[in-house]
This record gives sequence, structure tokens and C-alpha cells, in this order.
Amino acid sequence: MCEANAYLLAADHEAGQLIMENVFRMQPEGDKLLLENIFGEQKLITADIARISLVEHRIYLHPR
Amino acid sequence: MCEANAYLLAADHEAGQLIMENVFRMQPEGDKLLLENIFGEQKLITADIARISLVEHRIYLHPR
Repeated sequence: MCEANAYLLAADHEAGQLIMENVFRMQPEGDKLLLENIFGEQKLITADIARISLVEHRIYLHPR
Repeated sequence: MCEANAYLLAADHEAGQLIMENVFRMQPEGDKLLLENIFGEQKLITADIARISLVEHRIYLHPR
């Protein structure tokens, strides 16, 4: 499967804090980002996309 | 492999126009988006992320 884990970057968390595993869909919702994982969970996060690496299965976000 | 194909949405192209295949990394670069594929190609595009669907292996962008 090709889901990715989403990490929130922060000044005191350079590697990023895992906020959601197995994300399969992501899209902007107004000024937020909606993440959905394969377990049917959704998270609406006030963040911007910093980097997406599909080979690493990682989505990095930074808080706005 | 878990790369995705990138499509540019437009009013006259509802399904999106394929702009890059096998994208494995994407990140904002200033006010643009940098896409990189597994063949070493890079594209810098003035667009925003509309939706990312990792199960469909598709990245949808809309022109800004």
C-alpha cells in the first residue's frame, strides 16, 4: 500500500512529530488541511505542506 | 512503487491534464511547487495542491 505518515515540523521537533499514520488522502479545506487515513479517521490541521516524499511514505507539514 | 502522477486541473480540463508521471517528491519553492520524478526530471509549477490521493496515485493541482 502507498499511504504515508504525516509529520508536523516544529522548531523543537526537527524530525517532526507524527500526527497521523496511513494517510491516503489530503486536500486543503479553506485555510486548513484535511487528512484522511485508511482507518476512516480525519484530521483538520492548520498547517502548510512542507514536503511530500512518496518513496519515504512521508508527508511533512509545518504549522501556520 | 508509490510514486504518483500529477494532473493540472482547469476549467476546460475537468479530469486534469497529466503534467508529470512518477512523481516521488513535491515541495513548495517560494510561490511555486517543485515536482521531481524518478527519472530525475524536475518541474517548477505555479500551482496549488487541490488534492492528493495516494491510493489512486494521483496528485491534482490547480493553476494559480
